Amino acid sequence: MHAEIVATGDEIRTGALIDSNSAHIADRLEENGVAVTRHTCVGDDLDYLSALFSEIGKRADLAVVTGGLGPTADDLTAEAAAKAAGVRLDLDPSALHSVEAFFKARQRTMNAASRKQAYLPAGAQCIHNPVGTAPGFCLKIGCCQFFFLPGVPAEMHRMLADAVLPQIIERTRNNRLFYRNRTLSTFGLTESRTFERLAGFKKIFPQIKMGLQVQFPAILVKLYASGTRDEQLNEDLAAAVRWVTQEMGPYVLSQQGDPIEKVVGDLLTQKRASLALAESCTGGLIADMLTNVSGSSAYFVFGGVSYSNQAKIDILKVSPETLKRRGAVHEETAIEMARGAREISAATYGLSTSGIAGPTGGTEDKPVGTVCIGLATPESTSGYRFHFWFGSRSMHKQMFASTALDVLRRELLGADPPRF
Amino acid sequence: MHAEIVATGDEIRTGALIDSNSAHIADRLEENGVAVTRHTCVGDDLDYLSALFSEIGKRADLAVVTGGLGPTADDLTAEAAAKAAGVRLDLDPSALHSVEAFFKARQRTMNAASRKQAYLPAGAQCIHNPVGTAPGFCLKIGCCQFFFLPGVPAEMHRMLADAVLPQIIERTRNNRLFYRNRTLSTFGLTESRTFERLAGFKKIFPQIKMGLQVQFPAILVKLYASGTRDEQLNEDLAAAVRWVTQEMGPYVLSQQGDPIEKVVGDLLTQKRASLALAESCTGGLIADMLTNVSGSSAYFVFGGVSYSNQAKIDILKVSPETLKRRGAVHEETAIEMARGAREISAATYGLSTSGIAGPTGGTEDKPVGTVCIGLATPESTSGYRFHFWFGSRSMHKQMFASTALDVLRRELLGADPPRF
Repeated sequence: MHAEIVATGDEIRTGALIDSNSAHIADRLEENGVAVTRHTCVGDDLDYLSALFSEIGKRADLAVVTGGLGPTADDLTAEAAAKAAGVRLDLDPSALHSVEAFFKARQRTMNAASRKQAYLPAGAQCIHNPVGTAPGFCLKIGCCQFFFLPGVPAEMHRMLADAVLPQIIERTRNNRLFYRNRTLSTFGLTESRTFERLAGFKKIFPQIKMGLQVQFPAILVKLYASGTRDEQLNEDLAAAVRWVTQEMGPYVLSQQGDPIEKVVGDLLTQKRASLALAESCTGGLIADMLTNVSGSSAYFVFGGVSYSNQAKIDILKVSPETLKRRGAVHEETAIEMARGAREISAATYGLSTSGIAGPTGGTEDKPVGTVCIGLATPESTSGYRFHFWFGSRSMHKQMFASTALDVLRRELLGADPPRF
Repeated sequence: MHAEIVATGDEIRTGALIDSNSAHIADRLEENGVAVTRHTCVGDDLDYLSALFSEIGKRADLAVVTGGLGPTADDLTAEAAAKAAGVRLDLDPSALHSVEAFFKARQRTMNAASRKQAYLPAGAQCIHNPVGTAPGFCLKIGCCQFFFLPGVPAEMHRMLADAVLPQIIERTRNNRLFYRNRTLSTFGLTESRTFERLAGFKKIFPQIKMGLQVQFPAILVKLYASGTRDEQLNEDLAAAVRWVTQEMGPYVLSQQGDPIEKVVGDLLTQKRASLALAESCTGGLIADMLTNVSGSSAYFVFGGVSYSNQAKIDILKVSPETLKRRGAVHEETAIEMARGAREISAATYGLSTSGIAGPTGGTEDKPVGTVCIGLATPESTSGYRFHFWFGSRSMHKQMFASTALDVLRRELLGADPPRF
């Protein structure tokens, strides 16, 4: 079973948009035992699209196509698929129902442009879109089964998981190779240091493929195994996860690949503890990360983003003397911010950041990339200073935010504070 | 002149890595007047690679290929190119010199694996790599001029700019087409409503191509023009930008494609005004967005993320009676939050959000997707309630955050508040 992936759209073709859909689809297909041989992107051009679909119809067993199903005139995928299959477009009652239901549920009336989305190639089966207006469809072209999905990632992810993968798994059931993988998330070592630490892996686990994936600033360790005995694969992978965890020590965030905000949230929940933040240079990013985790209201009580010194004094109760003597970017100031956030909100822990994300604002002894982190616990307070050298403001913000959360994570685990 | 782009490598093919190289190359080629017709990715497989190169050799004028030039056994690009061109691999003195120089400059000795990188297809011209060990090369296969570059982004970017683009520009010099584009950012209408509003565009500007791109929750209107007279293109595009602005009215955020946080920051700067936030359901996302703009410390003074009612009462001075009578998600509560944030930080404006991002927490009269927004100005306060139906917590957070900023943006412009 060989599969191909197609991304359509002028934004991707011209480089205005990076295609992340194809990687997601490839990952899900490979995980389910389907080998992906090729990805292709073409623009919103009827002839190029239909020529590509015909070409793939001759060489692949299965294809997943994203994009071009919307209501506008440059959404040409359905028309191109019909042309390649040699059929015409027909109003599909089930697709029309799906589009109508979307508008009805939102008490809005359907416009004429949206109705266009219900025209599918004759013989196609509609794939319901539970989160958007554009239905998908599946259609045989040549000897290849095509699945057409919208390009909006949230819609595509959902339809791929709910409708496409179950069909594909059903098709491959009889001579099934199992593909299993595990992902560990780590933080605090560079990619090459992580690679060095895990250099012995290949000898001990020759049957497992290991890869590193940067999900800045975290690094994911991905383990892949394939074979006909599912149980054996899972045992092998579990042993490999244990080995990686031992080699990496406290740099491992999660054996399930969870991000640091989820890991810290779980640790706080286990300890029935709560958290308050005082963010300066991270500007609300830590609060945003924490509150992206559903259920975070159980432990996250307050976050103060204090860009101005006056707000640090008035709201977070930082002493004007400390600010005057030490400046805004200093361990002592950070400690007072963390203590202030903890006290005004009656949280178990207070965590703070103050630093210089850049591109401007650096000085000789506090260059761009400097961050001070304060932690206040029920027993004590502590302050840290780190220095990073990334190329952009947003990379610095992300690194600062994860480092602050790592200070708290290691405190909650009873591990040593991070070092870089 | 039609170009194609190829990314090679199992990491990309299997979805472990998202390919950002192809978008970069497409962007640079299009900007230099070369139309990109297709991107393709295949894995580290000699037969697939050479078949693809032969295929492209028949249909394109120019191709840029990235990846597979390294020292390891799965780096097969040079061998595949030689196979497709029907030549053999030879030790290239200039490539050898380039690899040797790299090691010498770093006082390291060249290993045998690295020497492999100096074997290029007979007839290829070496492209020097100033930042890494793998040299690139150019080679004609069929009727197409191929440029092969390493997959490491920093190396590829540099070699593309220094060696590849100058050659391409030289080739296209005699019949040079200029490609120019403009991007407007908009917020508040769906993609299909935006399309309806701009339906007359094609008739008035037949020489300009218009496309919409969702950059959730904003929608970008992209205008593309090509021709031999650069000045005329810029005039035409300026007229088109004016027309789109007139048709879209206050839905246009920026004629330069700026995001809403930058637009609001610029308006605050113009008015010498400052802003404080009180975020509940957006959990710090608005603060994070605002502080991603360099220079935001000039107008953004304080942000309070108050998930708990107690923090709303103690820190943001919301009255316990209002919380008891109206609940946390209500226009009145939002107004008190905005007023509190403004007062404790002495900001010109206070802006607040309180709502239900989901996936749980909804009730019959306040379902998931409900957001209340409060605005406090020097003269008055106002509260709004909106309802959205997106599929995920993070989409709701993004929509709520942009809607709150849009309430403030329209206030600063003297326009009507947003409606959905």
